[in-house]
Amino acid sequence: MIRVSPLIDRLIDALQMLPGVGPKWATRMALYVLQHNREGGAALAGALSAAVAEVTRCRECRTLCETGLCALCANPKRDARLLCIVESPMDVIAIEQAGGYSGRYYVLHGRLSPIEGVGPVELGLTDLAGRVRERGVEEVILATNPTVEGEATAHYIGEALAETPARLSRIAHGVPLGGELEYIDGGTIAHALRGRRSVVRGPA
Amino acid sequence: MIRVSPLIDRLIDALQMLPGVGPKWATRMALYVLQHNREGGAALAGALSAAVAEVTRCRECRTLCETGLCALCANPKRDARLLCIVESPMDVIAIEQAGGYSGRYYVLHGRLSPIEGVGPVELGLTDLAGRVRERGVEEVILATNPTVEGEATAHYIGEALAETPARLSRIAHGVPLGGELEYIDGGTIAHALRGRRSVVRGPA
Repeated sequence: MIRVSPLIDRLIDALQMLPGVGPKWATRMALYVLQHNREGGAALAGALSAAVAEVTRCRECRTLCETGLCALCANPKRDARLLCIVESPMDVIAIEQAGGYSGRYYVLHGRLSPIEGVGPVELGLTDLAGRVRERGVEEVILATNPTVEGEATAHYIGEALAETPARLSRIAHGVPLGGELEYIDGGTIAHALRGRRSVVRGPA
Repeated sequence: MIRVSPLIDRLIDALQMLPGVGPKWATRMALYVLQHNREGGAALAGALSAAVAEVTRCRECRTLCETGLCALCANPKRDARLLCIVESPMDVIAIEQAGGYSGRYYVLHGRLSPIEGVGPVELGLTDLAGRVRERGVEEVILATNPTVEGEATAHYIGEALAETPARLSRIAHGVPLGGELEYIDGGTIAHALRGRRSVVRGPA
């Protein structure tokens, strides 16, 4: 890329740490801020500094928050008997946006990956069984991603919770709503066929 | 969007002032920074603060820089007899990346738009004729975008420089009409520069 001036170059480089932002777009972003929205740029700098310095993890569910206990865990209306285990805070948001789930969450911040040095300790799994017992959890929903590592993680958690009284379930995997069979990969279709369910017939 | 925590929500909102970033992507960016790259986030905050506070305009060509005189204007190897007039700093970068141009620039930071209150004063056009004379410019290349307003701006500049000895040229219309310089590939831009043609001056 063409170098502009030291401070602008530094801004363009820094913007490229954002996911999906390459050199050209970073340049456009930097010049946009400096030409048209310095107030917004200053606000973003402040928001970034504050979030980076103060956001930690919820002591209960491990999702990201700066208040010690996140809004979901602090909400007495959420059903403590249901615990949904997900890989990332983004998954919590995705499930909340889908609506219909009223239980609690547990965020792993990753998945088992011995090659990358990610084990049960890093994922907060060592005291999960005790936590499930203490909180009176009746059903644990394994919502890790349907990847090899996500499946291995779900399997590991299943083993780890074997001695607890909680039921275990795995979110259904199959053809997404609105998806068309001809565009879906073979693995998903095979999975959807294996996981088929009886159709309850209405009164004829 | 689902609200997460005050500081994270503030960061997600602030990220949306970046061009092309909507709520969902801002959420992904915010969580990515907090989960995986806090150092990068802090660096971006610092770079933004510094750039917003210190970047002003080059006193010679009006492009964005914090050093008073930009690197291009400070470079004695750039041909002062050629002056290329563009709408934005992004256009300077686009032309520099295309290569092949060795003259100087003049950045309007916009185009004539009476509806939006953008006139010759805002575009720095009031003393352009004097500047062209003083600097001994022999050719002024009008590289405003081939939009209605860009053409009107080029026409206005042509009139304003009618009394100067400088030749006037317009970049060739290899650039598609309605397109914007910053989105055009370098080859087309280089071609348009080489194919520039003299502007026929109206009766003085």
